[in-house]
Amino acid sequence: MITSTANPKVKWVRALQLKRKAREEERLFVVEGIRLAREAVAAGVPARLVMHTETLDARGRGLANSLARLGAEVELVSESVMAACSDTDTPPGLLAVVERPDLPFPQALTLALVADGLADPGNLGTTLRTALAAGAQAFFLAGDTVDPFNPKVVRGAMGAHFHIPIRKLAAGEAAAALAGLHVWLAEAAEGGIPYYAVDWRAPSAVIIGSEAGGPGALTRELAADRTHIPISPASESLNAAVAAAVILFEIARQRGSP
Amino acid sequence: MITSTANPKVKWVRALQLKRKAREEERLFVVEGIRLAREAVAAGVPARLVMHTETLDARGRGLANSLARLGAEVELVSESVMAACSDTDTPPGLLAVVERPDLPFPQALTLALVADGLADPGNLGTTLRTALAAGAQAFFLAGDTVDPFNPKVVRGAMGAHFHIPIRKLAAGEAAAALAGLHVWLAEAAEGGIPYYAVDWRAPSAVIIGSEAGGPGALTRELAADRTHIPISPASESLNAAVAAAVILFEIARQRGSP
Repeated sequence: MITSTANPKVKWVRALQLKRKAREEERLFVVEGIRLAREAVAAGVPARLVMHTETLDARGRGLANSLARLGAEVELVSESVMAACSDTDTPPGLLAVVERPDLPFPQALTLALVADGLADPGNLGTTLRTALAAGAQAFFLAGDTVDPFNPKVVRGAMGAHFHIPIRKLAAGEAAAALAGLHVWLAEAAEGGIPYYAVDWRAPSAVIIGSEAGGPGALTRELAADRTHIPISPASESLNAAVAAAVILFEIARQRGSP
Repeated sequence: MITSTANPKVKWVRALQLKRKAREEERLFVVEGIRLAREAVAAGVPARLVMHTETLDARGRGLANSLARLGAEVELVSESVMAACSDTDTPPGLLAVVERPDLPFPQALTLALVADGLADPGNLGTTLRTALAAGAQAFFLAGDTVDPFNPKVVRGAMGAHFHIPIRKLAAGEAAAALAGLHVWLAEAAEGGIPYYAVDWRAPSAVIIGSEAGGPGALTRELAADRTHIPISPASESLNAAVAAAVILFEIARQRGSP
């Protein structure tokens, strides 16, 4: 059993949890809890390391065995080591270091979301989860959006990372990535037409900007049209994840299914 | 200047931030930052105490002066005292202890939201903000919903507390509180009809349950009908705040305005 936080594997997991650079260099991230680890297995995403405590139940032990047979190292760790490796206040019985899924784009992309400058990890995680639920097939990141493999994003997305391709939208490739999609910019203020007056049956991309700064220069340039969500005069704005949800589910409604 | 966290006023503010019981007994809560304090002033909600640091800008000092003229005690505090009183990692330049707004219900209630068992303060705060933006006129709390005056809820709601009446839905009074409204229960699973197939032009109440436990016995009994949001088969569920947003904005869409 690993009982020391000075153990090199513990240090490695902590670096992956805490440092974007470590996650990007190794193209790995950490999933916490049985539910997310099962999603990784189901998606065929290889795990490098599994850590679990003695309190793990039979279901969790079965999962650890499956991950071991699939090639992961499995380590029993003390409760305090698990607490040091977990990003949550209530550490799970199991966590896994997994590779970034490399999900293909569909041949005919009909709905993509672009998150531009979303700085709050909880908001980005919720937006990923919502995009998957509403039927989006691709998720692009523009501007200073938080790392999608940040532990808080991973937790909020509830497994969406294993189902929806996530890509950075770099300046040189952005137009090509969104080719064939009508690109709509969601404005916080009353720009463009109301979101429910848009005909969403055409292949579409929706850009959601940050609450603070709004969309950046790159996405403003990519946008063909602008839309907004009418809100009560007593209210100043919507949370970015909520704005994404309202528009994405209006698209699903118009198309007859998510 | 108050420089010690042992100062009785500092202890009082910290108790209001940390303890639901203290907030309920005194019927007070804490708003952090100039924006929320201005909302309190604009809503005519009395402040008891204002704390600010020396770094406060001219706009903030003007606000502190207004609050003083309206009867609040104003205290200059050290940065470390402000950090001890703040619920955030980036303490504001100003915070205020304010009374709970006592907002009246509209005579003819046409849209109410019922949050049943929402345990996550961020989710409840976002749901309050969204309910206001979508035009809900009343916000009810059922089951083990987190205290709406919890600092994280207050932060997430972005001032909704000063615009929408918030009430606990007690067992004996629930039916009377929702009288005249068609009560819809939003199911996480595929219960009832899709939310977009509901005719929302009638006066309505929507019950949103917790992600973990779903709605409780009280709200199940109150519900006349059930609805759900169809989601992609790849997805398991929606965040409760997102589910509330999708249904509330469909209501606003059908009614022609939030």
